[in-house]
Amino acid sequence: MKDIYVSDLMSFDEGKPFDCFFLVLTKQQRSTKSNKPYLNLILGDKTGQIEARVWDPGDPRIAKDFERGDLVKVRGSFSRYEDRAQVKVDQLRKANPGEADKMDMLPATRRDVGELWADLEASVASLANPDLKRLLTALLADTALAQAYREAPAARQLHHAWLGGLLEHVVSLLGLADRVAAHYPLLERDLLVTGVILHDIGKIRELEWESGFDYTVEGVLLGHIQMGVVLVEKTIAGLPGFPDRLRTLVLHMILSHHGKLEFGSPKLPMIPEALVLNFLDDLDAKMQAVASEFEKSAREGKAPDEMTGKVWALDQRQLLNTKAWLKAGNGE
Amino acid sequence: MKDIYVSDLMSFDEGKPFDCFFLVLTKQQRSTKSNKPYLNLILGDKTGQIEARVWDPGDPRIAKDFERGDLVKVRGSFSRYEDRAQVKVDQLRKANPGEADKMDMLPATRRDVGELWADLEASVASLANPDLKRLLTALLADTALAQAYREAPAARQLHHAWLGGLLEHVVSLLGLADRVAAHYPLLERDLLVTGVILHDIGKIRELEWESGFDYTVEGVLLGHIQMGVVLVEKTIAGLPGFPDRLRTLVLHMILSHHGKLEFGSPKLPMIPEALVLNFLDDLDAKMQAVASEFEKSAREGKAPDEMTGKVWALDQRQLLNTKAWLKAGNGE
Amino acid sequence: MKDIYVSDLMSFDEGKPFDCFFLVLTKQQRSTKSNKPYLNLILGDKTGQIEARVWDPGDPRIAKDFERGDLVKVRGSFSRYEDRAQVKVDQLRKANPGEADKMDMLPATRRDVGELWADLEASVASLANPDLKRLLTALLADTALAQAYREAPAARQLHHAWLGGLLEHVVSLLGLADRVAAHYPLLERDLLVTGVILHDIGKIRELEWESGFDYTVEGVLLGHIQMGVVLVEKTIAGLPGFPDRLRTLVLHMILSHHGKLEFGSPKLPMIPEALVLNFLDDLDAKMQAVASEFEKSAREGKAPDEMTGKVWALDQRQLLNTKAWLKAGNGE
Amino acid sequence: MKDIYVSDLMSFDEGKPFDCFFLVLTKQQRSTKSNKPYLNLILGDKTGQIEARVWDPGDPRIAKDFERGDLVKVRGSFSRYEDRAQVKVDQLRKANPGEADKMDMLPATRRDVGELWADLEASVASLANPDLKRLLTALLADTALAQAYREAPAARQLHHAWLGGLLEHVVSLLGLADRVAAHYPLLERDLLVTGVILHDIGKIRELEWESGFDYTVEGVLLGHIQMGVVLVEKTIAGLPGFPDRLRTLVLHMILSHHGKLEFGSPKLPMIPEALVLNFLDDLDAKMQAVASEFEKSAREGKAPDEMTGKVWALDQRQLLNTKAWLKAGNGE
Amino acid sequence: MKDIYVSDLMSFDEGKPFDCFFLVLTKQQRSTKSNKPYLNLILGDKTGQIEARVWDPGDPRIAKDFERGDLVKVRGSFSRYEDRAQVKVDQLRKANPGEADKMDMLPATRRDVGELWADLEASVASLANPDLKRLLTALLADTALAQAYREAPAARQLHHAWLGGLLEHVVSLLGLADRVAAHYPLLERDLLVTGVILHDIGKIRELEWESGFDYTVEGVLLGHIQMGVVLVEKTIAGLPGFPDRLRTLVLHMILSHHGKLEFGSPKLPMIPEALVLNFLDDLDAKMQAVASEFEKSAREGKAPDEMTGKVWALDQRQLLNTKAWLKAGNGE
Amino acid sequence: MKDIYVSDLMSFDEGKPFDCFFLVLTKQQRSTKSNKPYLNLILGDKTGQIEARVWDPGDPRIAKDFERGDLVKVRGSFSRYEDRAQVKVDQLRKANPGEADKMDMLPATRRDVGELWADLEASVASLANPDLKRLLTALLADTALAQAYREAPAARQLHHAWLGGLLEHVVSLLGLADRVAAHYPLLERDLLVTGVILHDIGKIRELEWESGFDYTVEGVLLGHIQMGVVLVEKTIAGLPGFPDRLRTLVLHMILSHHGKLEFGSPKLPMIPEALVLNFLDDLDAKMQAVASEFEKSAREGKAPDEMTGKVWALDQRQLLNTKAWLKAGNGE
Repeated sequence: MKDIYVSDLMSFDEGKPFDCFFLVLTKQQRSTKSNKPYLNLILGDKTGQIEARVWDPGDPRIAKDFERGDLVKVRGSFSRYEDRAQVKVDQLRKANPGEADKMDMLPATRRDVGELWADLEASVASLANPDLKRLLTALLADTALAQAYREAPAARQLHHAWLGGLLEHVVSLLGLADRVAAHYPLLERDLLVTGVILHDIGKIRELEWESGFDYTVEGVLLGHIQMGVVLVEKTIAGLPGFPDRLRTLVLHMILSHHGKLEFGSPKLPMIPEALVLNFLDDLDAKMQAVASEFEKSAREGKAPDEMTGKVWALDQRQLLNTKAWLKAGNGE
Repeated sequence: MKDIYVSDLMSFDEGKPFDCFFLVLTKQQRSTKSNKPYLNLILGDKTGQIEARVWDPGDPRIAKDFERGDLVKVRGSFSRYEDRAQVKVDQLRKANPGEADKMDMLPATRRDVGELWADLEASVASLANPDLKRLLTALLADTALAQAYREAPAARQLHHAWLGGLLEHVVSLLGLADRVAAHYPLLERDLLVTGVILHDIGKIRELEWESGFDYTVEGVLLGHIQMGVVLVEKTIAGLPGFPDRLRTLVLHMILSHHGKLEFGSPKLPMIPEALVLNFLDDLDAKMQAVASEFEKSAREGKAPDEMTGKVWALDQRQLLNTKAWLKAGNGE
Repeated sequence: MKDIYVSDLMSFDEGKPFDCFFLVLTKQQRSTKSNKPYLNLILGDKTGQIEARVWDPGDPRIAKDFERGDLVKVRGSFSRYEDRAQVKVDQLRKANPGEADKMDMLPATRRDVGELWADLEASVASLANPDLKRLLTALLADTALAQAYREAPAARQLHHAWLGGLLEHVVSLLGLADRVAAHYPLLERDLLVTGVILHDIGKIRELEWESGFDYTVEGVLLGHIQMGVVLVEKTIAGLPGFPDRLRTLVLHMILSHHGKLEFGSPKLPMIPEALVLNFLDDLDAKMQAVASEFEKSAREGKAPDEMTGKVWALDQRQLLNTKAWLKAGNGE
Repeated sequence: MKDIYVSDLMSFDEGKPFDCFFLVLTKQQRSTKSNKPYLNLILGDKTGQIEARVWDPGDPRIAKDFERGDLVKVRGSFSRYEDRAQVKVDQLRKANPGEADKMDMLPATRRDVGELWADLEASVASLANPDLKRLLTALLADTALAQAYREAPAARQLHHAWLGGLLEHVVSLLGLADRVAAHYPLLERDLLVTGVILHDIGKIRELEWESGFDYTVEGVLLGHIQMGVVLVEKTIAGLPGFPDRLRTLVLHMILSHHGKLEFGSPKLPMIPEALVLNFLDDLDAKMQAVASEFEKSAREGKAPDEMTGKVWALDQRQLLNTKAWLKAGNGE
Repeated sequence: MKDIYVSDLMSFDEGKPFDCFFLVLTKQQRSTKSNKPYLNLILGDKTGQIEARVWDPGDPRIAKDFERGDLVKVRGSFSRYEDRAQVKVDQLRKANPGEADKMDMLPATRRDVGELWADLEASVASLANPDLKRLLTALLADTALAQAYREAPAARQLHHAWLGGLLEHVVSLLGLADRVAAHYPLLERDLLVTGVILHDIGKIRELEWESGFDYTVEGVLLGHIQMGVVLVEKTIAGLPGFPDRLRTLVLHMILSHHGKLEFGSPKLPMIPEALVLNFLDDLDAKMQAVASEFEKSAREGKAPDEMTGKVWALDQRQLLNTKAWLKAGNGE
Repeated sequence: MKDIYVSDLMSFDEGKPFDCFFLVLTKQQRSTKSNKPYLNLILGDKTGQIEARVWDPGDPRIAKDFERGDLVKVRGSFSRYEDRAQVKVDQLRKANPGEADKMDMLPATRRDVGELWADLEASVASLANPDLKRLLTALLADTALAQAYREAPAARQLHHAWLGGLLEHVVSLLGLADRVAAHYPLLERDLLVTGVILHDIGKIRELEWESGFDYTVEGVLLGHIQMGVVLVEKTIAGLPGFPDRLRTLVLHMILSHHGKLEFGSPKLPMIPEALVLNFLDDLDAKMQAVASEFEKSAREGKAPDEMTGKVWALDQRQLLNTKAWLKAGNGE
């Protein structure tokens, strides 16, 4: 585990040297006005990002072979230029295997991933429909896929944009789905649960999180809905006797979960379970955005009487923290 | 209780006389080609509507004093003209008090209204916030209002468009709201419950259901959101010491519950409880539309392999009944 | 081949008996006012549709075992009721194998299907890229699929809505694509040609044309874009060493060919070939709509000075036939 | 009255000391890189805003007790940093009562408020409808409300965003309304006049202008339309015998005056007076935006041949000053 | 002048013969079921339209040479078929010159056209700008054009869709424009007046009203905005020394008067006069639609408590007649 | 021809003097903080733009009489301020006639203008329709217009925004149009060709390129569609016996070529040639944007695996260079 994080650097005295592991998020060749080449880096860990400069790239203490996505050990010092924090890099080498943990280098869920995974497995175990159960069991039996499912963020920037974010979002949805399925007997509960677990599974291929969160080229051209459909389709092809109709319904759940054509779903929800999945997915993403925004306002020291900033995920709406506002008003 | 309903008439032999109570939904003066005046009526009860003609309005056996909205007793006979069913009226008089029950004359909930009301009262009783509790208690203590709340449809034509529909919709929402509030600790549960109970309360003034379901002129010009706000505002004005902030939040819940400006909410939801109320209100209305559509398909004898007709409340989408379709496919 | 077509019946004297083969498009049980059961049928062939009634379904000369989608031989007579043509059915039996040709029973392309198919095969043969060539060759080697490709309509109702319409549309597009690829050297011609051939291939599963043109349930829930992707994906899986990048590009061509999310493409065209495919597909569909509309106006005897009716495929625009209008104006 | 205004500071020599009264618009605690705390202020008066820094907040000559919204007396000097003007504050204390006038501290109408108010009162006096007259009389008899009506801006940033802006906009509309009512005899002139006076009355609660122009939290959650309706509703409740229909119409005028649901009116105009109010309100706001834009262009020294900048209130359109352009072209 | 109008026929006894002049709106060749040819006509005058049939087109008493757009004298009798009125034609000949007046044959303004024209000429005379005055004078000096201006409807179906409707609409706008120009000194009044007179002048070529109201082919392909621009451009070309800038502004007024690109204006209003013209044009059209709708409701015997039907020109809104509703409520 | 270009300056040492010709794109009077007046210029040539400052405008070596749009000779030196390049001007005079070539001062097509023009003339020569041929011949016979046609950019900023861009775009379209006309026999090829040549001809008046690319005031108020129509209309007026219908069709081609009202075409394409023109115009503009974007990515050194930046002309889509990506993947 790291000793020093990006968030710690901000309080450092200027000029004081330190050693620290980072993930290289960007690496660019640049020149000064006097045409002296230097390296401009963006280094990150799970607490944030910081700009860094290698003024003498030819220095033997600066590794030649590192790239975007590498873990590196840096010796440097901290400075500020017009409110912009910067690291001056004196030494830099690639981290040795085991020296640093990638999970420390990108923002990650605050939940325990093992517990979340156990929740997911409990949901699979709870299925009464044998075909859906063997479909999910087969998928999650692929250890590489299961590992990716545990790591993947739910998005590059919006809701749950951190390692483990996909799993965290799915587990929250599983809780909601069970509550809502109990409320509407019309719903085929097992199909809804299956849809929750599979709806975003293509994100483990659409996104990559080795070197920051980004889309793969295949992800940009095909999209996670499509990639999820192909993945599930292939798994089903390996399950003899899987009912055709059930296959169609499961694929329809994935295809339609964005709820509108203009949100990238090529089909609107046309079965009740797909309708509910779209609602709950949207609600959970928005509730997470609300919670994040309230945390951000608190971090920024906003008074309870102030609305939050404009929230991208809610059409640039501003929000009010009901509980905080009511509490602040009690003494009035 | 009535012996004969509109739905029964359809199987009658032509020409056979019958006696029956109806609600007058429309009454128009017309003339034949040879300029003989006659009355064209639309008569209804809870099972449907039928056209009726009084060919000799001057006949002393035909009452002069009845209007749209009256309960009447009719003696007449049934006929068909090019697949259009029609009643030929021989005698007609206004019903005597107690002879017929208005609840028999308009479509009504199949749920027990007493039980639904008890559910609503239990929700009020469950509130921990004393101000919200006295607000709801004060409102429901108005017996005329409480009676109207029990009777009101939730809409003229769309979801829950029957007597008791508003109450049925609210009670379903209360169940959902409790489940979702338990899932998201962020939510101020009592405010959400209050919003559920009050969000559509203006409908008891926007709509009238004495003579079919229709909008009042005031309802058309002001709308149920506005009328609800004014009603709640006045009730709060009678509650000394009601906190200003709580008043603002309750009014905001009502104002924003349609979720979008273009759906008639002058404000978007800006507190988490309002966001959730909008989602659940929309979901419950759509799930009711889904259930109705599946019942309609069953009534019309559609095969499980056929999609339903286009559903207005779901953007003209067609739906598939998951459970029925899977069951029908089991033997394949 | 048939002797008599629906279009011929219109000029028949009322009451004159005839024998004719038809496709059963609809079969419904109904009752007369006096509760006598009868059958209401819609019968069709490639020239149109006509309503038919079997007034005595119990007559031994009326087969019991026919259904929607069957070819039948009918003996009956023609009548008109208020401008509505109708067939009174006296005898009806299922057609024996070979007695009637399904191609005679639905509207079909006026082009020679064999020639169109040869054009398609010539395009495949022209490909320089070996991977794309073996992909298309593998697909078309599936004789059931190739037969379906030759038969499929391009749509249920809009452009090219006739047997062979898909192939006719694709062959027209191949001609256009070659011309445009020659104009823009930037384009990877073989990828464009492959996209043209595969973009709508899912329609052979989305639609069924055994008993009129309709969507399959799977077609409604998944859509032809999705079904095409899965079909191509599976074929590629059987081609060892097929390049990953080429696979992504081919799937992207299919996914994006509608050009906009709101038209059901989950991805916008992001490579030049996909951009061009979307343009040409749209242009060819619209040009076919223009041509059809001009033919329709001519059939209806409209003067060259009259605009056509409102054209659905062109946003309800009215059109003017340039050549006809100029010619008509020459004498002025 | 102030001697020195923000607009004067711009021409001051750097470093020259001055004394001046300001309104505190923002007050923030900050630290230098070397962690020395300082205060960052934004100070304003009716001519503009300027940034100010208190480098030594502990200095006894700097008051401790001032907040955003206070009037303060500042001794300081002027400096520029990269084209950004700044005040270095040496002394600061809260203004004594009577020392400075809030009307001097925020942008204000150039019209005489007394005259504008007299125009408004003349309109009220001109009403023939006794109920509307007593409604307006009762409202304006509330001196706090009348004072607020005289002070309120019409908006935070768009048209008439200055003290007295609401009144100025209303008086312009009264003139227009009289002209248009005279043109269309169909119109109930008194209702139109009443609508003009009341349509934006909620703005006196939606906005606050003690410390710059801003929305109140209640204003954000409820909006001025809603707040106006509640205010008028309460006033009417105190007027015995006020006709129900007239009440509905007045409320409808307020509710519908934005003209479209997506502009925040929960109801569209459904009476001719509401239709006209919406048109005139929109026209007057736009004409004011046009006039402001032309003044701004003149201030910036644009030539008559140049279009103005993009105008926010007119969908980012650029405008041309007809009179100036024609005049400039006369010599051509 | 005619003795009998279409509106009179409705009360005629069936079978009674009459003589009457009509305008031929449609003439179609048809055949009965038994293949006997007959003519189907639609005949009209200013009070309405009626279907007519010539069962024996070969009868020597039936003219051969009449066409759509001709005035004809008809001898026939009246009948009804399922509530559809129809004329059975026994004799028909083209009207002799002078026998019938085209102004009697199409709906026409109820205003005095001479007075309206005098109002227009007074506006032209009032112009202080000599160039605008000679432009308008030159245009109206073309007697054919002036006659067409007096006759033209303002639209085929929407507002002012009657002979003289264009002039009536323009004169109403001139009154409004003078009032509004007096309110905003910013406005170049003469340019606004000129814009009012010229904005729709292309309609005299876009529409034709010889044989009912319809668009010309040129009108459909080019539109009245374009045709107006060309007409004004040509007139200006004949006025030596007409200032270039003024020409640009006048053309811009015409081009932009629909106010939005999607309403067919290729340019948005970018000068204040164009902005005002767009507002007033829209307002006057809507006020006329309101007035027409109230008249229609009165004609149909609607109660003052009923909203009107849905008004096409007002986005399908329903309206309430303020004055009538208030009056009806006075006794309550 | 110039020796030194803006693009060369970037690599100059700071302070080294140079002599160079430029086009003055902007000239502004400004003052330093100490109120010393200076001139701020933007100077450009075909390779780019650079800011320049004249610190002593009163120096006799600085010309007084130059304006925006003038060609000037500058002696100065190069400097950088925070990554912003700047020229310090020591001497400045207007260029003598013949000293510098305007074609060197603005970005220009890389194609040979003479060849492009010959292609255009060949298209005109190819027309079989004599009226269209004499229309185009007459237009291009105007040497000023023909010169402007050769010089005009196709847009200010988007596609083909360089000198000769209009001609380059038209010639590409002529090639496409011939290919597509050959594919669809329905098309009146000569009308399509004429439309291609004339559709943007108004741009030679809408834009001016003497002093950078900008809109004229007339261009802003009327637009190139309108200006093109008037130009063509006037030319036709000088051609005796030009058929009315052909005139209407040609004008319709120009009017409708943007394809949608919201793109500024006041009419939708209603003839097949106009439909095709709109498609090809759009396709060619987009293909040019694609090509430019790929060149830009290459210039910026992007890897073939990276998507391009967001492309304005393609709804902010990112693109992938198919050929480069496939090639880069070959070794995988």
